[in-house]
Parts: sequence; C-alpha cells; structure tokens
Amino acid sequence: MEAGVIGGIDIGGTKVAVTVATQAGVLCRLSQPTAKTGPEEALPLQVVALLQDACRQAGVADVDAVGVSSCGPFAREDGQLSLVTPNICGALSGAEDLPNDWRAIPLERTLRRHYRQLVIFNDAVAALNGERLFGAVQDEPDCIYVTWSTGVGFGLCVDGHLLAGKNGNAGHAGHLLMSPESDATCGCGNRGDLEALISGRNLGRRLGRSTADVFNAANSGDAAAREVAIGAAQWLGRALYNVIATLDTRQVVIGGAVWEHHGHWLAPYVQQEIAARLPALTRGVSLRPAGLGALVADIGALSLVLPAAWQQDWRQRQPWQHLLARLEAAPGTAASL
Amino acid sequence: MEAGVIGGIDIGGTKVAVTVATQAGVLCRLSQPTAKTGPEEALPLQVVALLQDACRQAGVADVDAVGVSSCGPFAREDGQLSLVTPNICGALSGAEDLPNDWRAIPLERTLRRHYRQLVIFNDAVAALNGERLFGAVQDEPDCIYVTWSTGVGFGLCVDGHLLAGKNGNAGHAGHLLMSPESDATCGCGNRGDLEALISGRNLGRRLGRSTADVFNAANSGDAAAREVAIGAAQWLGRALYNVIATLDTRQVVIGGAVWEHHGHWLAPYVQQEIAARLPALTRGVSLRPAGLGALVADIGALSLVLPAAWQQDWRQRQPWQHLLARLEAAPGTAASL
Repeated sequence: MEAGVIGGIDIGGTKVAVTVATQAGVLCRLSQPTAKTGPEEALPLQVVALLQDACRQAGVADVDAVGVSSCGPFAREDGQLSLVTPNICGALSGAEDLPNDWRAIPLERTLRRHYRQLVIFNDAVAALNGERLFGAVQDEPDCIYVTWSTGVGFGLCVDGHLLAGKNGNAGHAGHLLMSPESDATCGCGNRGDLEALISGRNLGRRLGRSTADVFNAANSGDAAAREVAIGAAQWLGRALYNVIATLDTRQVVIGGAVWEHHGHWLAPYVQQEIAARLPALTRGVSLRPAGLGALVADIGALSLVLPAAWQQDWRQRQPWQHLLARLEAAPGTAASL
Repeated sequence: MEAGVIGGIDIGGTKVAVTVATQAGVLCRLSQPTAKTGPEEALPLQVVALLQDACRQAGVADVDAVGVSSCGPFAREDGQLSLVTPNICGALSGAEDLPNDWRAIPLERTLRRHYRQLVIFNDAVAALNGERLFGAVQDEPDCIYVTWSTGVGFGLCVDGHLLAGKNGNAGHAGHLLMSPESDATCGCGNRGDLEALISGRNLGRRLGRSTADVFNAANSGDAAAREVAIGAAQWLGRALYNVIATLDTRQVVIGGAVWEHHGHWLAPYVQQEIAARLPALTRGVSLRPAGLGALVADIGALSLVLPAAWQQDWRQRQPWQHLLARLEAAPGTAASL
C-alpha cells in the first residue's frame, strides 16, 4: 500500500528535525536540540514524540512511512542499525561535555516499534537521494553528494543504486587517506585523511582562527588565506578524483557551508584536480552546487519513502519552498559552519 | 528463456580465451594471442570465431548467452561499450610495438550482431562475480576483488550489486592517488597512485629487476628487497582501507601473481594497515586468497550469464576442476607475472 502521509526525521549532532508531508506538500516541520541525557533510547524516543507533535500540528493522525537521515557512523546489532556517533555517545568520545555514557543508540529497534515502513540512511546518502529526486542531479544514476562543512561527508549512487554497505556506512570518504606524510590529524586518529586536511573543524583547529574567517579572507584577496583555501579545494578535488576512479561516477553535487559561500570561486580548483587525471574516467564529469539548500536533510529524509506517484507533481510545484523561505529568514535553525 | 549452453569470453592484453559450458560443466576452452592487426573489429571477430570453434569441439550448435570479462578501460559509443585499452589500441598508447592505429574497439556492437544475451564487465568485476558464485566470497553482498600482478585491478560489490558505473569502469582503484609527493609515476600519468607504487610493471621499472625477483628475494630474507615488498603490501593495505571507508565492504579477496606466490607472508602487513584505522568501518573485515586460480577469468565470464538453476549443482561438483588441472600442468597458457 502506498503511503498517504509520510514523515521525515533528520538526526544531527546538535539538532533533530522532523517533517510531515502529504502529496499536497510539507505540512509541518519541527526542530529541537538533540537529546543527550537519559537512557540510550532517549534520542529515538525524542524524535518519535516530536513527529507525533508535528502530526498533531499538521492535523493528521499518524504517518504511514518514515524516512530517516542520520549522522553516523552506524553499527548493526541483531541486524538493526544503531548509532555509534562520537559527538553524541559519551562512552565513545570520552568527551567531558557529553552528559551520558551511551555506547550505542538503538535507533532502528526503537523506531520499528512505532513505524512499520522505515528507511534509514546516513545523512549524506539521504541528501544525495533528495538531490536526485528534486535537486541538482535529477535522475542521474552515477553521482556523488559531498557536504563540506564542519565535517566532510559523501553519499554515493552507482548504476542508480544508493550505496549502503555492510553497516550502512558507505560514503565515509571523508576519511580517505590523502597524504600519509601530512601532520594534519583527524578526530578519527588518521593522519592526512581528507577531513584532517579540509574539514572546518580540523582546519580551524590547525589555523587558530575560524574556517569562515579563513575562507572570507581568501575571497577578499589575503594571500596566505588564499593559499590555505585553494589548497583545501585541491585536496577535495583529488579525493573526488579518487572516488570517481573507484566508482566511475558522472556528476558531483556539493553542499555544506563552505561550498554555499565559496563554491563559486573554489570550483575551478576542484575541477582542475579531477580533469587532470585519467580521461577515460574523468571526461564529462561535472560539479554542481546542491539544489535543496537548508532543507536538504529534510527533503532527503522524506525522499527515502516518498511515493513514486507524487514525484512529478512535487518536481513541478516544489511544495517545500514556503519552509525554505522561513528557514532562510531565521537562519539559526539551519545548519551552519 | 534460460540458457542451455553458455559461452565465456576472456579478453586480455596478451591472450584471449573462450569457454563453452552446459549444466554438465565446462566442455571446451580455447585460447589464442590477442589479435592486434587488421580493422578495429578484428579482436571481437577473433573471439566470435574462436567461440564457434569451441562450440564445434564441444559438439554443440551455438551458445544461448555470452558473458565477457575484458581488460579496460571501456568507453561508450551510442550507448554501447567499446575498448579503449592502451596496451591493445595503437592510437592510444603511441607504442611503437603495436601494429595498429586503433582508437576504440567496437566490442559490444560487434558481439551483439552474434549474441542476443550478452553481459560485458571489466575483468576484475567478472572475477569478483566468479568468486562470489564459486570461489572465496560465496554469497557475500559487500566485497572487493583485487588482482595484484603486472597491473592492479579492483572489482566491487556493494549491497549485493556489482558496480559498473557510467561507462563500466568502476573499480579503477589501481589509480587511487596514495602519495602525491612520491616520484613513482604510473603509465596513466599519475604520480604516486597505487599502480605506480606497487604494480609489477612499475615496481620492476623503478627497481631495474623483475618484480618476481624482488618478492622472491624478500621471501628469502634479503633486507633491501623485504623493505620494498613490505612497503608495497602496506600501500595495498592503505588503498584497501580507502575503498573500505568509501564502500563499507566486509570481505576482500585477493588474486594475481604476486598474491598467489607471496600472499601467505604479505597478508599480515596488508591487514594491519586496514585494522589500524576507523574501527566502525574496518572491524570484522577479512582478507581471503582467491579461490578460482588460473580459471578466474573464464569462470568469471561464465558466471555473468550462468543460469541460477545450475548454481548449487556447480558449487557441489565444481565441473571446471579438470580444466584447472590441465592449465596448471601447462602454466604457459595461464596469466603470469
């Protein structure tokens, strides 16, 4: 049976958001800071309650299907996905500022008690699915989504198939080893992986100033900042070349705070690193800015369970633009660098 | 309609081989040096004629379906795969020793004139499919095949789906950039890609002695050779880590001349480079030696069109072992380092 009401759940390290939609469009979106206290299932119970609230506000009884876009990584326990996310689970990070001793959040087990139709993907994979349905790479079977922000995440689609992998963690190409001789260290312990070299989190720590400052100064012509920013764009280009050589993908869609503000002048440096290598694989590859903006996680989550019959109608009417306007008017509610 | 007689075609840079099989087993295998003179379709016409010969010798009229395992890379012309292989096409390599000026070999177009049921994959992908059906990674949905020989090739399977990519070139992870500061150069022009660092072709050129010599000396305790061989195994391990971080795969099956002879002592160095990183992705990953030996390309090609109804029977009886014994008795007919 096709769903009449669908729900989207977006789980991030700092906030969660839920959306409720019918074919008419997105009826309601609610957001809260991510639950980080209580029992290990506090976070999944939080999003269930928030989605019930959203249903009430939307005037619908319940949702028929739920798509989940979540930060990772995931683990599998008895076949079901749980979250083992260092910036949420206190026992994994050893972080003093996390008020819990969670080892694994039983995401799928808890949500399955409430929703029979449930699809869970990593946030970058869900974002790619959203961009393939309604954004910058519509109907493209071979494509990559990259978000370049505090972290670096990839979503991958090959031959029209979204890649999940053994535990749903395909797309962790932010942890590709790029320069083993580098002294840049990633939070995961790797030396010289892509995140160590270019993520907002690690760049900021290495430079002692915010990443936004560096990229803004670079864009204003500051020579030292330019060298750092262009160097980072070139590392991203080499990593994309690596993923393209591995997967023979055609289109790359890039989102995240760095690209939103600086993609217009960084793109040629990224493109050059791809085009300079192995023409049989890289010829015809194009870069595109993400099309769904601040709603990419919400539309990504909904897209995972969106009935095929709604697709053409939603493409024409884009019945999420009212929300986008609202989010852009109050940007604090959107992810920021 | 399920096929009653299937054919396999294996296209390499130095030889082609064809096999004919019924459910009873592999009835005939013929091999010839790869055609490199005449019109651009000389090579596909060669394998069609060879397969007709094999049918005659097997006492069957024709094949109902054909699987092709071919060296790459491929290009797509009017939607059909052609070969743009530098070590076969004279116009691409500029090699003095190639007696043709071919730019692209119209493989699929020529074969489709003869075979209605036709499946073409890169040789490493076909090998992976063979290993998944009858070799070392049976029924594993998330796995990698690597051949380490004169070149380095990968075949990839994620979520039970063999990856092809926009032009059938997924798996060119031999050209992953691993050490941009390295002065090791690959035939493709990359500096510090995996093939530059570890392929037999490039190692031999850099060291001025054959790769077989180096690995044999290393295995006998020669300290300098050991450093080179172990260093190469570590680069392979880091590249495998990169592919595992990108695809969240579970099992790695390794074949090719280097591994056949030296995998037993190199494996721990490869494994260590994987296990040292990102436990959420690498925990539980295992390395296995390839199971199909010198017949991996032939069984890989057949596996692409093998009727599902034959599978259990073939797993039990392994009706290719008589050929393997023959090939091992006359190793000149198998691929060698």
